[in-house]
Amino acid sequence: MDEKIRINKPICLEHSSLKYPLPEKLLFELSEELHNMNKYPSGGDYLELSTKLADYAGVAPGNILPANGSDEVIESTTRAFGNKLILIPTPTFSQYEASADRNGFSKKLVNCLQGYDYKLNYNDDDLKEASLVWICNPNNPTGESISREIIKNILDRSAGIVIVDECNYEYLGETVADLIDKYHNLVISRSFSKNFGLAGFRLGFTIASPKNIIKIARYCQQFRVNRMAEIAGIKVLKYLNYYKEIWQEVARVRKQFIAALHQINIMAFPSKSNFVLVDFITRENTKSVWQYLRKEGVYTFAAWEDEFSGLENHYIRFTIGTRQEMDYTLMLLNQYQKNNPI
Amino acid sequence: MDEKIRINKPICLEHSSLKYPLPEKLLFELSEELHNMNKYPSGGDYLELSTKLADYAGVAPGNILPANGSDEVIESTTRAFGNKLILIPTPTFSQYEASADRNGFSKKLVNCLQGYDYKLNYNDDDLKEASLVWICNPNNPTGESISREIIKNILDRSAGIVIVDECNYEYLGETVADLIDKYHNLVISRSFSKNFGLAGFRLGFTIASPKNIIKIARYCQQFRVNRMAEIAGIKVLKYLNYYKEIWQEVARVRKQFIAALHQINIMAFPSKSNFVLVDFITRENTKSVWQYLRKEGVYTFAAWEDEFSGLENHYIRFTIGTRQEMDYTLMLLNQYQKNNPI
Repeated sequence: MDEKIRINKPICLEHSSLKYPLPEKLLFELSEELHNMNKYPSGGDYLELSTKLADYAGVAPGNILPANGSDEVIESTTRAFGNKLILIPTPTFSQYEASADRNGFSKKLVNCLQGYDYKLNYNDDDLKEASLVWICNPNNPTGESISREIIKNILDRSAGIVIVDECNYEYLGETVADLIDKYHNLVISRSFSKNFGLAGFRLGFTIASPKNIIKIARYCQQFRVNRMAEIAGIKVLKYLNYYKEIWQEVARVRKQFIAALHQINIMAFPSKSNFVLVDFITRENTKSVWQYLRKEGVYTFAAWEDEFSGLENHYIRFTIGTRQEMDYTLMLLNQYQKNNPI
Repeated sequence: MDEKIRINKPICLEHSSLKYPLPEKLLFELSEELHNMNKYPSGGDYLELSTKLADYAGVAPGNILPANGSDEVIESTTRAFGNKLILIPTPTFSQYEASADRNGFSKKLVNCLQGYDYKLNYNDDDLKEASLVWICNPNNPTGESISREIIKNILDRSAGIVIVDECNYEYLGETVADLIDKYHNLVISRSFSKNFGLAGFRLGFTIASPKNIIKIARYCQQFRVNRMAEIAGIKVLKYLNYYKEIWQEVARVRKQFIAALHQINIMAFPSKSNFVLVDFITRENTKSVWQYLRKEGVYTFAAWEDEFSGLENHYIRFTIGTRQEMDYTLMLLNQYQKNNPI
């Protein structure tokens, strides 16, 4: 295996951006827009973009609020609704907690990981008290999905807003966007970073009732989404078939990566996302693997980095790169296991 | 004059973005970066960008915080320091007030316009009570400048932070950035929209003491500046000579525009910026001029739009476009004056 793999180092499997190329025709279209960058973006409700996003999400334009990445969805929703108590299901993406702290809001971290099962276990008292309840589906970093029934159950039991982070929706293939008219306490966060490869442009969006969109928009700047992101968002959906093939390829590579890890007795979570969480059993071993990979040019996120809330120190998250990149990573992990049997 | 001017309508003299083209070589450089847009921006302190900006501003990289446009400088500085009382010198840019309101902070609007003179007249009691004091230099929309001595005087008399909005610094040619080590209560806002024509990308930055930079950064997202803005900011300063010629041309066109208005008895403020505030005496006449220009394809900001705080209803702000655009606008104003003598 070793001799066959030729790879340009470094391999960045840290941030879960798309590791596959953008469509050539999209790049050409965007290059033609560069000379217009002395103009401001549309701003405000970004009507043309919102209309495209609404069409894609199966909702109305008034249900959509474009944002400067889903980070801005997190911050603006926290500011709009988090003032009483924020429930955060750990281990999960650290920005929910960071945003709560930044605004000086009370938070409660609820551990949802039992062995290798990530199960939302919010209790009734907390759901009645909280003004904002987080659900990340599929969850980051475990990659496990939350069923529609569980989300509906939490929506029913919550007195406040329930925000479902669907920034990996395209890999999961399931959404609760169709419930937006039924549940007025539902807010959804989406992104173009991990699925459409627009991480550099920063484009996310909120889905919610028009009333909640107005509340959240109060905390957003007029020109928050830059003009390149706006145009990219309008144009990128034409290339959906190109992306669907990539998402399928990511799923195949992920499946093979997990299977290969299990073959060498390394435990990986059953991810529905474009990343995989791997258990290296002890902090010491995890640090040693992480450093070895780094030395060999493969960069990953370890549990102790700022990316995650409530993740124990014996995990590493691998973003799924190209087949070649993951084969190279597997080769390194194989070598490591041979030289360092646990 | 009329027959000589051929113009592509509409002429957008609303937002004060640069109406001149970006350097061709910069556009080519940026087009080569498009394929990397599936990667996140550097994030955090944006070290390479901050180093370039520091060099340009004559300060240290630790004095710099890149932002998603100067709008984000306004919002993050307001959140960091505005919790007690915010002083706003009207008429001025509306976002200082909007940001105060959004955060539920107390504000005091202080009228600084006496006839056609915009003079900061903050009193001692207010300066002792306020936690954040705004100075816009040159002021938007009057275009008039505030002297260095007056700014130093306000810095000396203020108990809280004094923020100087220098987003038109390149047209004025004066800055207080060199005072950043002397006055620990000084914060400066800069932009790349009005001067370098990067309005579409959204790039601004804060200049402050390292201690204040850390306080302000608490309210900023990791990836707030998108990757295209980051790269554009790093590369654009190579073309400073190209821009200097444009800034001189804008000054010449502005001077001629103001002189031509005065010749037909229309009063314009003596601007040091890339826009000119014009007095049409009555609300009725102002509305009539504004509508006439709009009908003829020239879009301007009237006083009653959301862009300004505390501006009476008989003003229109014209951004300085190309010579041809301003000649066309003057022709229309000439025609209007002939047909509607006051």
